[in-house]
Amino acid sequence: MNDTPVERLGWLGTGAMGSVMAAALLKGGADLLVWNRTAAKAAPLAGQGATVVGSIADLTEASVVFVMVSTSADLLAVTTGENGLLSGPRRPEVIVDCSTVSAEASAEVREAAAAAGVGFLAAPISGNPHMVADGKSAIVASGPRETFDRVAPWLGTISPTVVHAGPDEQSRLVKICHNLLLGMITQALAEVTILAEKGGVAPEAFVDFINGSVLGSTFIRHKGRAMVERDYTPTFNNKMLRKDFDLGLGAARSLEVPMPVSAMVHQLVQTAIGHGFAERDYAALYEVEAKAAGLRDN
Amino acid sequence: MNDTPVERLGWLGTGAMGSVMAAALLKGGADLLVWNRTAAKAAPLAGQGATVVGSIADLTEASVVFVMVSTSADLLAVTTGENGLLSGPRRPEVIVDCSTVSAEASAEVREAAAAAGVGFLAAPISGNPHMVADGKSAIVASGPRETFDRVAPWLGTISPTVVHAGPDEQSRLVKICHNLLLGMITQALAEVTILAEKGGVAPEAFVDFINGSVLGSTFIRHKGRAMVERDYTPTFNNKMLRKDFDLGLGAARSLEVPMPVSAMVHQLVQTAIGHGFAERDYAALYEVEAKAAGLRDN
Amino acid sequence: MNDTPVERLGWLGTGAMGSVMAAALLKGGADLLVWNRTAAKAAPLAGQGATVVGSIADLTEASVVFVMVSTSADLLAVTTGENGLLSGPRRPEVIVDCSTVSAEASAEVREAAAAAGVGFLAAPISGNPHMVADGKSAIVASGPRETFDRVAPWLGTISPTVVHAGPDEQSRLVKICHNLLLGMITQALAEVTILAEKGGVAPEAFVDFINGSVLGSTFIRHKGRAMVERDYTPTFNNKMLRKDFDLGLGAARSLEVPMPVSAMVHQLVQTAIGHGFAERDYAALYEVEAKAAGLRDN
Amino acid sequence: MNDTPVERLGWLGTGAMGSVMAAALLKGGADLLVWNRTAAKAAPLAGQGATVVGSIADLTEASVVFVMVSTSADLLAVTTGENGLLSGPRRPEVIVDCSTVSAEASAEVREAAAAAGVGFLAAPISGNPHMVADGKSAIVASGPRETFDRVAPWLGTISPTVVHAGPDEQSRLVKICHNLLLGMITQALAEVTILAEKGGVAPEAFVDFINGSVLGSTFIRHKGRAMVERDYTPTFNNKMLRKDFDLGLGAARSLEVPMPVSAMVHQLVQTAIGHGFAERDYAALYEVEAKAAGLRDN
Repeated sequence: MNDTPVERLGWLGTGAMGSVMAAALLKGGADLLVWNRTAAKAAPLAGQGATVVGSIADLTEASVVFVMVSTSADLLAVTTGENGLLSGPRRPEVIVDCSTVSAEASAEVREAAAAAGVGFLAAPISGNPHMVADGKSAIVASGPRETFDRVAPWLGTISPTVVHAGPDEQSRLVKICHNLLLGMITQALAEVTILAEKGGVAPEAFVDFINGSVLGSTFIRHKGRAMVERDYTPTFNNKMLRKDFDLGLGAARSLEVPMPVSAMVHQLVQTAIGHGFAERDYAALYEVEAKAAGLRDN
Repeated sequence: MNDTPVERLGWLGTGAMGSVMAAALLKGGADLLVWNRTAAKAAPLAGQGATVVGSIADLTEASVVFVMVSTSADLLAVTTGENGLLSGPRRPEVIVDCSTVSAEASAEVREAAAAAGVGFLAAPISGNPHMVADGKSAIVASGPRETFDRVAPWLGTISPTVVHAGPDEQSRLVKICHNLLLGMITQALAEVTILAEKGGVAPEAFVDFINGSVLGSTFIRHKGRAMVERDYTPTFNNKMLRKDFDLGLGAARSLEVPMPVSAMVHQLVQTAIGHGFAERDYAALYEVEAKAAGLRDN
Repeated sequence: MNDTPVERLGWLGTGAMGSVMAAALLKGGADLLVWNRTAAKAAPLAGQGATVVGSIADLTEASVVFVMVSTSADLLAVTTGENGLLSGPRRPEVIVDCSTVSAEASAEVREAAAAAGVGFLAAPISGNPHMVADGKSAIVASGPRETFDRVAPWLGTISPTVVHAGPDEQSRLVKICHNLLLGMITQALAEVTILAEKGGVAPEAFVDFINGSVLGSTFIRHKGRAMVERDYTPTFNNKMLRKDFDLGLGAARSLEVPMPVSAMVHQLVQTAIGHGFAERDYAALYEVEAKAAGLRDN
Repeated sequence: MNDTPVERLGWLGTGAMGSVMAAALLKGGADLLVWNRTAAKAAPLAGQGATVVGSIADLTEASVVFVMVSTSADLLAVTTGENGLLSGPRRPEVIVDCSTVSAEASAEVREAAAAAGVGFLAAPISGNPHMVADGKSAIVASGPRETFDRVAPWLGTISPTVVHAGPDEQSRLVKICHNLLLGMITQALAEVTILAEKGGVAPEAFVDFINGSVLGSTFIRHKGRAMVERDYTPTFNNKMLRKDFDLGLGAARSLEVPMPVSAMVHQLVQTAIGHGFAERDYAALYEVEAKAAGLRDN
């Protein structure tokens, strides 16, 4: 980032994820203003060079404000809401939303920002705080190309992978596609692990081999371990995954794309719910597969 | 490998893959005898410290002989055949077969070895020569536990991942399971990439994001690039993949394991063949998906 | 119908289907008032003993009025609309809607009828006019049990099969389930007919055998003939069938019922659309199957 | 059959099915010789005009001999075996095998018959004895066209539907295709019946409507009743159906025909077996579907 001039940036939302992302901007050389509803959570960033401010309005001194909040409602509140980023006389040039929100909320904020002369980039991130800290996350952004180019160097201080998906809400679609893959790969892994198991191979050995092979990925490592330990403590439960498949297959229907394997896995997730795993992690697809193979008591 | 005593080993088969694996054993400290049908191909290993011998019989001076040949017939010829490893009065303690051969051929050699008082380990490797050289391959072995323990340190000089799958032909089943995963993940990737594409996302951007995410793997990087470039130059063609699905679903039928997604992908590979992609790389599942989505001329 | 007292009934809508149904009521002994927007179409029924009336209001002299119109909008117009059955001071006791309309429109009319003290029965019919004339149709009705019992004898003069599906809009769900079956059986028939064909069996001979077997049905006879003749003149096109699958899988999702084969056929209908058969009869699933089997030029 | 000259025919095998078929030939005007291993079972046919003979050799006085036995081994025994139809100096012109045997056994007998100058027709029948008696069965035959034409009038006295499928073993393939349809339609019916049931429709009412509709068939009537009564007393159990799917998908693989729905149902039958229904009627697919929908205790 040597050739990036020192720029005053803003960060709104310093939960676990927001904090580690903001820290990356600081390491990347930013002059950073931060705000959080619960101010105490922003304090550690001060130790890393950030300036904690007292109101959202104070963030508008920055040219670019990044937002990382929990829900669609939160995003609307801190942007279009009373005392939001777009409510006062002074505004940032660009708002970059890194939260995972609905395409509808995203489009609503984008429109309000445009009306206020503010650029908007939807830039959800894939990964958890540990992965961001380890430089293993990825960001997919959508919005006007020039807005993307404007902030891409800063996003690059957070994630080694930053891609531009399109001019409006494409990044939301990409995130859903990503989650369809999570479900499909989990079912695929469940099928072959049970096959190997019934053929006499210890699941641990099988999963270790897959992880060491060309197929190895952070995801397979995590999901494989959950299967081996039959630990279905939810990181993301079957109802949540079903929701993403509802969205993904809805998009596929609108765009007229047949998705045979996605549709099949959607039904298998529903089957897992019917078998009592609604609130369990979707690694429980492994358990449903095991029952179907006659491996567990039904 | 500091505490592994210098042991005389043998290597049979120095094609592209065998050569790089033998080189790893040399780097690991082995005193290595090598033999190849075409002697010229064994010569470079001499420069790395190996002793090139003139006959298979000469390899039996070694305690452990590794075999890396192309086909089931080759494996039978160099072991149970006339002048094979098991044909003379002197024999190695253990034969380790790293080739990818049928479970039937493997069982036949295992039986003949046992009758001759020789241990046998089926130890296929996942990866290509470049990946082995970069320390990114994986080995799955099956055979008696003590035989595995006997040679595991040497296998560890070749691959960072070495697992024991079971007492007899389980490593062959694991390799097939691995290949079922290759097919399923490719179809899954084809579906979501086309969905994203029809939704306005450039395939390159989409695949880059997936590779940067938790799902990123060597395999997805390679297959994703083939899709983006619509380059179906075969690394493994649809007929070969269909063969592995035939074997995998045959094993699943014998073991009574329902495999809904595997069965579906088997039919989609057949569909790709029906659409003229028999001899093309199975990344062409992407092309069939595109046609089904109305994206290409039919 | 010997013990059914002569009752004054009303019939609204005398298109091809309505006419043959009204004629069945007349044959069953009804004293029938009929009305149609285009009066000329009602005239033939006068020759069979009906009394043609000049306004919808005249129909309210009848105790039970049957409605057979084309669309949800038509149903709303002739019931809740200005000059509709529910608009004046005199009303029938029961309205029986035999049209195929949306569950939403049905519920709206049901509610308006209830508010006006009028019973409502949703009673869609399966079959075409020829089949109704031949006594081969079926009616599925939903509404309060006593309303059903009140009119079931009259419905029995139209169709040999009259069933009560539930207290409100269940008959609409049943009709959608029926249509899911149409799609699934067509795909199933396409798969086996192509298999037989590639095995050397003439499609005509194959379909004739199936029709003569325990599986034979009016539907398979019609769809089988379309496949044999490769005649995809639409009776119901792929977009219409996709619509019903949208509704059926939507209902399945709401009710949390996994439908693996239905979901698969939904995707195959989408594939047929992607291959250019959107406006063709869904018997064209046979054509897509043939292409996938390499039997037609791609 | 007025213009068919009285011809001497032979019948071998008078179990429940053979007896009713032989009776149809007698009614059709045949001069019939009958033989059965247990002679007592042939006696009732004598009362209907048949001549019971004492040995298989006696049947060779007939020009055409029909065979209806239980297994492939039985067929081989009574034809190519010692004292079989092909063993003596006198032979019939044509042997018509109506049994359900393997394509291999069929081909073996066909070859032996050809070597002996005897025509052979493989002519399995669909239906049970009651259906044959009621004139509701169907016969699919394969063998040389002229052999078929030679005996078709007689087959027509047994079944209203008699089709010629091809010159050799095609009738066996057709029978398997028929059985694939049985499985697919049963799964389809299970899905929609559970959907209707969860939507508040009594399964009886639903199945009655389907039976009265264009989809109604003898098969759906029987299978629908089994589902409604949750009576899985086997007529054909899941292991038998899986066997036919093994054969059907094996044929599809050899002929290179993708069968997505067939493949899916194959896996669902395997799932039913995994859930404990191996020896139950395949109507139990309904039970597995119900469990997946959360309708039964798991």
